[in-house]
Amino acid sequence: HLSHTNFTKYSLTKLLIRNQLVEQFKCLEQQSESRIQLLQDLQDFFRRKAEIQLEYSRSLEKLAERFSNKIRSSREHHQFKKDQHLLSSVNCWYLVLNQTRRESRDHATLNDIYTNNVIVRLAQISEDVIRLFKKSKDIGIQMHEELVKVTNELYTVMKTYHMYHTESISAESKLKDAEKQEEKQFSKSADLNVHLLRHEDRPQRRSSVRKIEKMKEKRQAKYSENKLKCTKARNDYLLNLAATNAVVAKYYIHDVSDMIDCCDLGYHASLARTFRTYLSAEYNLETSRHEGLDIMENAVDNLDSRSDKHKIMDMHNQVFCPPMRFEYLPHMGDEVCQVSAQQPVQTELLMRYHQLQSRLATLKIENEEVRKTLDATMQTMQDMLTVEDFDVSDAFQHSRSTESIKSVASETYMSKLNVAKRRANQQETEVFYFTKFKEFLNGSNLIIKLQAKHDLLKQTLGEGERAECGTTRPPTLPPKPQKMRKPRPRSIYNHKLFNGNMETFIKVPTHESVNMDSIVFMVNHFLVTLLVSVIHALLSLLP
Amino acid sequence: HLSHTNFTKYSLTKLLIRNQLVEQFKCLEQQSESRIQLLQDLQDFFRRKAEIQLEYSRSLEKLAERFSNKIRSSREHHQFKKDQHLLSSVNCWYLVLNQTRRESRDHATLNDIYTNNVIVRLAQISEDVIRLFKKSKDIGIQMHEELVKVTNELYTVMKTYHMYHTESISAESKLKDAEKQEEKQFSKSADLNVHLLRHEDRPQRRSSVRKIEKMKEKRQAKYSENKLKCTKARNDYLLNLAATNAVVAKYYIHDVSDMIDCCDLGYHASLARTFRTYLSAEYNLETSRHEGLDIMENAVDNLDSRSDKHKIMDMHNQVFCPPMRFEYLPHMGDEVCQVSAQQPVQTELLMRYHQLQSRLATLKIENEEVRKTLDATMQTMQDMLTVEDFDVSDAFQHSRSTESIKSVASETYMSKLNVAKRRANQQETEVFYFTKFKEFLNGSNLIIKLQAKHDLLKQTLGEGERAECGTTRPPTLPPKPQKMRKPRPRSIYNHKLFNGNMETFIKVPTHESVNMDSIVFMVNHFLVTLLVSVIHALLSLLP
Repeated sequence: HLSHTNFTKYSLTKLLIRNQLVEQFKCLEQQSESRIQLLQDLQDFFRRKAEIQLEYSRSLEKLAERFSNKIRSSREHHQFKKDQHLLSSVNCWYLVLNQTRRESRDHATLNDIYTNNVIVRLAQISEDVIRLFKKSKDIGIQMHEELVKVTNELYTVMKTYHMYHTESISAESKLKDAEKQEEKQFSKSADLNVHLLRHEDRPQRRSSVRKIEKMKEKRQAKYSENKLKCTKARNDYLLNLAATNAVVAKYYIHDVSDMIDCCDLGYHASLARTFRTYLSAEYNLETSRHEGLDIMENAVDNLDSRSDKHKIMDMHNQVFCPPMRFEYLPHMGDEVCQVSAQQPVQTELLMRYHQLQSRLATLKIENEEVRKTLDATMQTMQDMLTVEDFDVSDAFQHSRSTESIKSVASETYMSKLNVAKRRANQQETEVFYFTKFKEFLNGSNLIIKLQAKHDLLKQTLGEGERAECGTTRPPTLPPKPQKMRKPRPRSIYNHKLFNGNMETFIKVPTHESVNMDSIVFMVNHFLVTLLVSVIHALLSLLP
Repeated sequence: HLSHTNFTKYSLTKLLIRNQLVEQFKCLEQQSESRIQLLQDLQDFFRRKAEIQLEYSRSLEKLAERFSNKIRSSREHHQFKKDQHLLSSVNCWYLVLNQTRRESRDHATLNDIYTNNVIVRLAQISEDVIRLFKKSKDIGIQMHEELVKVTNELYTVMKTYHMYHTESISAESKLKDAEKQEEKQFSKSADLNVHLLRHEDRPQRRSSVRKIEKMKEKRQAKYSENKLKCTKARNDYLLNLAATNAVVAKYYIHDVSDMIDCCDLGYHASLARTFRTYLSAEYNLETSRHEGLDIMENAVDNLDSRSDKHKIMDMHNQVFCPPMRFEYLPHMGDEVCQVSAQQPVQTELLMRYHQLQSRLATLKIENEEVRKTLDATMQTMQDMLTVEDFDVSDAFQHSRSTESIKSVASETYMSKLNVAKRRANQQETEVFYFTKFKEFLNGSNLIIKLQAKHDLLKQTLGEGERAECGTTRPPTLPPKPQKMRKPRPRSIYNHKLFNGNMETFIKVPTHESVNMDSIVFMVNHFLVTLLVSVIHALLSLLP
């Protein structure tokens, strides 16, 4: 029999193992169920997210379509809007719509990828998890059967050993009994030998001794046999014990881990590929967005009031083309076509010339002052108008609080108070600018008129003086009149209409050597424009 | 009087100018109206886009919330799910939800920026356009009045010149008349002088001559006066003509452009700032998205089945903790606790030992073959499982056709046919792998048992030999038994449970010098685990 303690020890270990095996399966099953649940959640999630992408995509598409249609019909109905897209500001608006369409398309693509790729993958992984769990459990059952087998074997060999040892003990005690009897017999016969020589009861005693010896021999044989059996059984037990412990250790160190690996087979890799598909889609959406935004940003960088102004003037060429100069229309038969500076008007003209000269000097100084103020005011306005108040990155800070979305309108540059203050300031400056501009305009108009008269007088008087001198030296023409109005230094004012050709044109009638081709071209151009305008003017005169 | 041609010329030029001025205003007005329309469209657009952002944001928020709630309640109800987030796969899922929440917040921010910043700016620009158009028109009116004024003045001085020239011509003809009369008188008196000297009618004739001379003088004076007047008028006309042409030229070259500039004042700059606000918002949204995706990508890179397996085993420590070794339980009084290799079992044991040795050699070779097949199969599976099939950038190509969204599921790697083929292939390999794995498991279980027995026998027989020799030389222990099962080369199998501590632990009872601290720690750890398991086992035995 096994001792009670030994039995308990063995059984407890075996029970513990069996219990763990059951729990291990439970654990694997739980894990697989968790995974299936996770995969189901992911599928549900992406199904709904795909829907959201589609809704978003459709909303954006509708939005872009609405305004594109509006632009299309407006172009059809208003001739003058046909070339609007050439204007940099309108171009930005069209690009905003393009970007919206691009976003719409990209989010539709996202929907497609979620639905036809990500979700399909997730469903497959789910199948894999179920299938692999079953197969791994099969493997596990095989492993567990092995454990049960070896522990049962161990139990068997242990029982055998204990049985043989019990028998061995009993054989030993029987042998010992026999040995004691033999000893007793021996001491008895030694006593008798001393007292009784040649007795008639000797054969009887001899047969008794032989009997005892025989028994002892028998018991000795039995004992040896049992002892050998027991030794073999113990050896078997010890060898099986080592084997069992080795198998159990292997199971816990390697096999159980291998079983989990079987369960996991490809799970992480497939899941990673699914997430990478999702990431690839999202990153690509982002790249596409970014490309669109860059195009947009480029268009914003190219917002240019000067170029837009020139485009508008080009579009309305007839309206902004300078008219023909007023010609000198002499009275019938009057052959004089120049200012005459002979006496008696010479003195008066000279006086007038000097008056004009001093008047102009004063006016120019005054107007230059106005111009400086105007430029400074414009600079102030430009600073207000180009203030870099458009960075909204603060609104996208996630780090601190995840809950509260910072309102962009509060606290910042765009707060109502700030905006109102800025606008009031801006409009005040604007009013001042316009006042000064009118003043400058009046001044410069006066100056240009006086300057024209002054220059003509100067030229005339120079010729007159020459005429009076009557010498043969080449005429020293008075210096060509300076253009009164210097272009203002700010580039915004420093433009030239029609690429400056107009100034060339204006100069033609008054001056000497000009490229004939360009004159012919300009005159032709001007004439065509003029004729169209004349027809226009005449038509408007009809009742 | 002006000649008809001259009058027409002057009037046409003046009419052309007036007509152009009207058209210029119309053009400016049209342009301003276009701008107001554009700004209105932009406001409408961004208002609707803001709504779409909010809808999108809310949908995403609801989606994330739905699954977050599910996770929360699942954690509360299932104890074992509490630490699930430690698993790399579950972590990815949580990050997908985080990213969704982040997107939701960012799109809500976009809504806020559109509504409270972009639209506000657009409305302000609209106001500016209206106000500046009015002010610019005022300036324009002033400019036009100046043009009308100078052209009217020119007309007046031209008329004056023509009038004086007419008068000058008439005075000249009258003077010529008088000169003719004087000449006639002169020739008559010369005739008389020849025929009549000292005549009585001389005084009468002298008075007639004096009368003619007086008239001539008067007419001469009148003519000179008129000629001077005419010269002055012509000079005035020529000077005014120059001034007028200068003013007109200035208007067409500079003033009209300045007027447009006044209209444009700040329009492009403000529009640019508005678009830049939009761009800043969009770029920041993108940056935020990107940050989130990078976190996500990092988590996907860290998807790790090995670490997850260890975490699961740690979480279920009791279930995976190796049990106590089966102890040798000797029968009462049996003091032998080792395999005995004395005669008569020695021969048999030796024979058994040699049999085991040759059996093991064969088995190991066989099982090594199985292992090689297994590894190759695993490699094939790994290649299938880690194929890089997740790039969906093709779906986001906008360049070619803007209309057709390429379906990701068609043609590509994810096509149904391809997927089915791949999966069939994968599962076939899987089946083969499991068959081989079972084979390998059987083989290695057998080997480990035989090896344990073999090692024990080897040790015993070695000791037995030593004991028989009875020499004093130090015992030459048989070489320590090699671990039968070599760790497989694939790192996925090359793990150690509990950071390999278990193996150390397993070795403790059989071997010599081990750090006592670590033994104490391990034993404590093991005992605690064991006691818990025992209690568990005992509880499960209760009726």
